[in-house]
Amino acid sequence: MRIALGLAYDGTTYNGYQTQPSGNTIQDQLEGALAKFLESSEPVQTVAAGRTDAGVHARGQVVHLETAAERPLWNWVRGVNTFLPESIRVRWAAHAPDDFHARFSAISRRYSYSILNEPVDLPLVSRFATWVFQPLDLERMNAACADVLGEHDFTAFRAAECQAASPIRVISRCEWEQPQADHRRLVFHIRGNAFLHHMVRNLVGSLVEIGRGAKPVDWMASLLAGQDRTQAARTFPAQGLCLEEVEYDEALICVPESRSVA
Amino acid sequence: MRIALGLAYDGTTYNGYQTQPSGNTIQDQLEGALAKFLESSEPVQTVAAGRTDAGVHARGQVVHLETAAERPLWNWVRGVNTFLPESIRVRWAAHAPDDFHARFSAISRRYSYSILNEPVDLPLVSRFATWVFQPLDLERMNAACADVLGEHDFTAFRAAECQAASPIRVISRCEWEQPQADHRRLVFHIRGNAFLHHMVRNLVGSLVEIGRGAKPVDWMASLLAGQDRTQAARTFPAQGLCLEEVEYDEALICVPESRSVA
Repeated sequence: MRIALGLAYDGTTYNGYQTQPSGNTIQDQLEGALAKFLESSEPVQTVAAGRTDAGVHARGQVVHLETAAERPLWNWVRGVNTFLPESIRVRWAAHAPDDFHARFSAISRRYSYSILNEPVDLPLVSRFATWVFQPLDLERMNAACADVLGEHDFTAFRAAECQAASPIRVISRCEWEQPQADHRRLVFHIRGNAFLHHMVRNLVGSLVEIGRGAKPVDWMASLLAGQDRTQAARTFPAQGLCLEEVEYDEALICVPESRSVA
Repeated sequence: MRIALGLAYDGTTYNGYQTQPSGNTIQDQLEGALAKFLESSEPVQTVAAGRTDAGVHARGQVVHLETAAERPLWNWVRGVNTFLPESIRVRWAAHAPDDFHARFSAISRRYSYSILNEPVDLPLVSRFATWVFQPLDLERMNAACADVLGEHDFTAFRAAECQAASPIRVISRCEWEQPQADHRRLVFHIRGNAFLHHMVRNLVGSLVEIGRGAKPVDWMASLLAGQDRTQAARTFPAQGLCLEEVEYDEALICVPESRSVA
């Protein structure tokens, strides 16, 4: 039987999602909690939709696992959470067909990247946002975002370690928002069929250069066309990045509505 | 010369604002950073508007200090922040008249209390909110809030250790809001001339009893009239509480606009 789980986590203190010899990853914590929940002496293996990096957060990570254990779905949520640290939570559980694969069945992923754009850093925000003190022009950044939409070769925004077979990705949403009128928290939303290693954080780095006026709006189009990582700006820090949602065919799996709590 | 500073802090790991023999308080950190900034071998003494408890946060704490040091105001912000941990920030500095007193000159204080009202706890919210899984009825809680407005004896919501001379306080705002339509983070806003020890957290405890339907809406009025702490509900956890703003006469001190970043 195949079970899908929705996960949220504060990634601040973890070495990323994927299991590592050093331990201290989200996957290590989750699989340990699953083994306790299932009272299994065997390790429980899971597959995740996205292998988030060290320090990256999630509100909408999805994993699947194979199990012979028959439990009410709500027990998967409450029971596994009993064995997880407070910084990781199973938000929902769903039955999935045998051919459901958290990673390969995903139609799209949506990430957010939060920036606190104030003269002084704010402790209650900075755990989940990157502080930029230079004033950023939202309209300039959104004008550059328009050039990111659609199918492109993202070589200019791909980490050297990236193992993807192709640098081509299709972006269906790319925009900055200011969620509340009375302060300067800026949130970047990007949805694509998939992402290269560090791609979102690299795009944010270059969009911020445009936003603070150090580069022209059409710099984004030049970078994409140039396909040269060394021409683009630095990788922005992990703490502002959050995996918000993974989309699947509704006929395959019925995922409870993902609610954005920002 | 008198200087006023605006402070924000993530209180999670501190033993409250006020200095203690054990150390590890916001005041200890601030006064240590001020001594380094002023290159002073003497301890620098500060007075705060509100002595927040262990685990309580602030976006709008105000302190004052006496100094002979002449520095540009922005240097007080940037310079002191250099010596503070990331969880504490000076947001602004202002010149204040000699008779300004951060605590006694305050006209009002405004606190917020955040509740995550979802079936499952959410790690990215729970550092600054208290999780309540039973559905809460905002309208019932707000009907009870109307009875809190105005001048009352708050003995029923006062901690045993409270040292205030009088239990009478005047409340000028008391309401629950749901900042975004798409999720269930509920925020309680309360403004009063001053507050008794644990008063906000005790009020929240009883309002939640009304909100989940365990008590009638008119219970709040009964508790206020009864003046008996043992009849009211438990003290709610510190992590949801935040000192948002302290108000002064504008003729006395010009405080930079406090911006809510929730």
